[in-house]
Amino acid sequence: MDLFEVLHLDELSHGLANLSMFPYFDMAHYMVSVMALREQPGALDVSRVSPIACWFSSMLFCFGGAVLSAIMLAEPAVAPLSNSTSVLLASVIWYLVFYCPMDLVYCTAALLPLRLVLSGMKEVTRTWKVLGGVTQAHSKYNDSLLVMIAIGWARGAGGGLISNFEQLVRGVWKPETNELLKMSYPTKITLIGAVLFSLQQTHYLPLQKHHLMLLYTVFTVVNKSRMMLTGSSTSPFAVIESAVYKTLFTGYSPYSALTGEVNNPCIDNGATNTTTSTADKRRESSENGEAGQHSPVPPVKGQSESLKAKDESGNTETASCKKTD
Amino acid sequence: MDLFEVLHLDELSHGLANLSMFPYFDMAHYMVSVMALREQPGALDVSRVSPIACWFSSMLFCFGGAVLSAIMLAEPAVAPLSNSTSVLLASVIWYLVFYCPMDLVYCTAALLPLRLVLSGMKEVTRTWKVLGGVTQAHSKYNDSLLVMIAIGWARGAGGGLISNFEQLVRGVWKPETNELLKMSYPTKITLIGAVLFSLQQTHYLPLQKHHLMLLYTVFTVVNKSRMMLTGSSTSPFAVIESAVYKTLFTGYSPYSALTGEVNNPCIDNGATNTTTSTADKRRESSENGEAGQHSPVPPVKGQSESLKAKDESGNTETASCKKTD
Amino acid sequence: MDLFEVLHLDELSHGLANLSMFPYFDMAHYMVSVMALREQPGALDVSRVSPIACWFSSMLFCFGGAVLSAIMLAEPAVAPLSNSTSVLLASVIWYLVFYCPMDLVYCTAALLPLRLVLSGMKEVTRTWKVLGGVTQAHSKYNDSLLVMIAIGWARGAGGGLISNFEQLVRGVWKPETNELLKMSYPTKITLIGAVLFSLQQTHYLPLQKHHLMLLYTVFTVVNKSRMMLTGSSTSPFAVIESAVYKTLFTGYSPYSALTGEVNNPCIDNGATNTTTSTADKRRESSENGEAGQHSPVPPVKGQSESLKAKDESGNTETASCKKTD
Repeated sequence: MDLFEVLHLDELSHGLANLSMFPYFDMAHYMVSVMALREQPGALDVSRVSPIACWFSSMLFCFGGAVLSAIMLAEPAVAPLSNSTSVLLASVIWYLVFYCPMDLVYCTAALLPLRLVLSGMKEVTRTWKVLGGVTQAHSKYNDSLLVMIAIGWARGAGGGLISNFEQLVRGVWKPETNELLKMSYPTKITLIGAVLFSLQQTHYLPLQKHHLMLLYTVFTVVNKSRMMLTGSSTSPFAVIESAVYKTLFTGYSPYSALTGEVNNPCIDNGATNTTTSTADKRRESSENGEAGQHSPVPPVKGQSESLKAKDESGNTETASCKKTD
Repeated sequence: MDLFEVLHLDELSHGLANLSMFPYFDMAHYMVSVMALREQPGALDVSRVSPIACWFSSMLFCFGGAVLSAIMLAEPAVAPLSNSTSVLLASVIWYLVFYCPMDLVYCTAALLPLRLVLSGMKEVTRTWKVLGGVTQAHSKYNDSLLVMIAIGWARGAGGGLISNFEQLVRGVWKPETNELLKMSYPTKITLIGAVLFSLQQTHYLPLQKHHLMLLYTVFTVVNKSRMMLTGSSTSPFAVIESAVYKTLFTGYSPYSALTGEVNNPCIDNGATNTTTSTADKRRESSENGEAGQHSPVPPVKGQSESLKAKDESGNTETASCKKTD
Repeated sequence: MDLFEVLHLDELSHGLANLSMFPYFDMAHYMVSVMALREQPGALDVSRVSPIACWFSSMLFCFGGAVLSAIMLAEPAVAPLSNSTSVLLASVIWYLVFYCPMDLVYCTAALLPLRLVLSGMKEVTRTWKVLGGVTQAHSKYNDSLLVMIAIGWARGAGGGLISNFEQLVRGVWKPETNELLKMSYPTKITLIGAVLFSLQQTHYLPLQKHHLMLLYTVFTVVNKSRMMLTGSSTSPFAVIESAVYKTLFTGYSPYSALTGEVNNPCIDNGATNTTTSTADKRRESSENGEAGQHSPVPPVKGQSESLKAKDESGNTETASCKKTD
């Protein structure tokens, strides 16, 4: 691809492709993951009530992708534990983030500049994880694009996809939402990566692997940094998503009845049924102080909300810690 | 078996045994499964909020049995995805049922005659799925009847057995009920099939495979059609079940205390304890507008109720759609 | 190790090591497990509503460890079913405990002396299960201590670790607590056993296997008997635990704000945030009549409470049954 040669990016992409994730990038990944866990509501209480549940939860945040893809491929789910060095590293970081005297480690790492660097490095590991998953699936199911995408996605965004069960370890249970109902930005970008690397692997995408790695990594890092700096939660795909959504998934609207245009008893009937049930559901969920998953908003909105929530939690924490210095 | 020869059913059973499920019977299975999903409360809302969660849910309805039996046998849970043709077929049907303009596909398929044919064809696939599961288990665990029954059951009724987790994908969580607590008719008929085919496989049942296939298929299809036409939900096994239940499982009734005959402090004590807890439970669950699983009714009743519920939902939909033509 | 020779314990330990668990010790294990299930709130109702759910639940109590470790090692989860004799034995015991006329079996086995013997024998099986898990993991992951501990623990305390899902089978769902959040005594002693046997397996512990088996078995049996006789729930590790807890896991207390010593805005902020959320959580959970897992007590207390609860249930039952004789 001469564009790369023109821009002298070939050797750069080669250099990136030969980059080793261990130990620095892995450490950044563990750091950001454990900090994300710590910023979950109630996580600090759990870390006091039951350190072992907190540790297990952290390991799911750090190695969730490996566990999930292992289960999907019928490989031992304990395999990640067999890599003692990584587990030890993650455990040390878990301990420092949760139990360090004066909370120095967390407060330092939560400073925006440092957090920015760590998050950037974590995004780099995403490329390697997705690619690893895709390659592994390709070696088992040669021709199946779907399996490659599924495994790549699971490997890269496992922590998010199993979040319901990770929360269960901490005694939290939020069935009304999951990453499939309200995809967060990381899950979304990982899915796109899995698709791209699968297409490259099956040669549908006329790109060399290291070039794609460079492009994807740059995109994720830049985009993540932008979102952290501007604090904006506008997904770069929002426009495309809503376009696709409007085109494909609004063939038959069960809400036509609400907007008055009753043109079809079948639809009408269905609409009234479903919407009442929705109302009930929403009432329930509002009682629990949760946003019901049944509110008829396009996924984009839901995702950006959850994303904003995350960012805010992050910012408040950062702010609160800044004061200490 | 000369009865078959007398009735000239031998070649018929051979013909059935050589019947290929792909593509027509599989399509019918996908169609009926996706329609069943669509008729779940709140499913339409999910299809609008998150098409991907809806798609994943549909795949669990269509391939749940394969996934469950794969997990039980420690085979890759993603294997069903590797059969691209089936997944593509199921996905197209999912799209048409949920998002077809004017909702034509669903309303057409929901017409009683067509629905009757589709359901009948789906019942035929059940025989093949159960038999496939039993054979697979037999090849792995030669002599173990229990494993063969378990796998055959899982393969044939997987969608129902994992329903709690399928619902979780859609953000619905109903822990107070599952297919083991309140067996639905399909789960029950599949269990019986699994037992029969396992006995045939281990030669405890003096029948040839293709004869059994014919008998089981005819029974399931006829019975399903009867239930759909009469709209009755009386299980054909209700009598046998309640007889077995009365004989085996009422040795010691913790409810004797309620009926006044206090003949044993042990029982009495147990009864009061449990029934109070039951009362609480029932209050809770009634608040959630759900029938608590702790109400002391025999399983038969519970099952027929749930079955009726299903039928009704089906009928209302059908009715509502009939108007459109 | 001459201490053993001096005390002439060598042949005793050899004798113990060659002891066969089948059938008597296994039967005791099944008996105690099924009785523990029966003493769960609502279990009797389930046994009336759906014998099959009750049976499946009992099998999870009896073979949960084997199932969990099989899943973790990507081995067939149905494997335990393939051992027909054990399953048959467990099923017969399940039937007798739940459905025996006049409830003779349960009331007899619940008599303190008999229950004491059965519980002692069950504790013996624990040694074998933990050792089996550790050995199996060692054969697969030679050098990985963590995997050996995990599998040994899962094999020995599986029933407890999967309790959330075992309860789900019975229609009960208590996300706010699990064995990791509030470790019960059996789970704890099994974890210690798994650690010891793993260290022995990897020769970090200078002890012969049969000597360790003797020591561990004697300790578990004696300790269990003590707890049943005295009805006391003071874990023998309470002191060590709270010492370790105080040393390691109280580096940064989010509750300092409550005790007035506000020395750090970061901590202060975090504390107020988390504690309010805790308050909410506790209110919720108290409404459900459950102890919220978010109450900031050290795990030791939580565990001893749950333990006391268990013991009491056991005692009341025993008492209630004594009257009958």
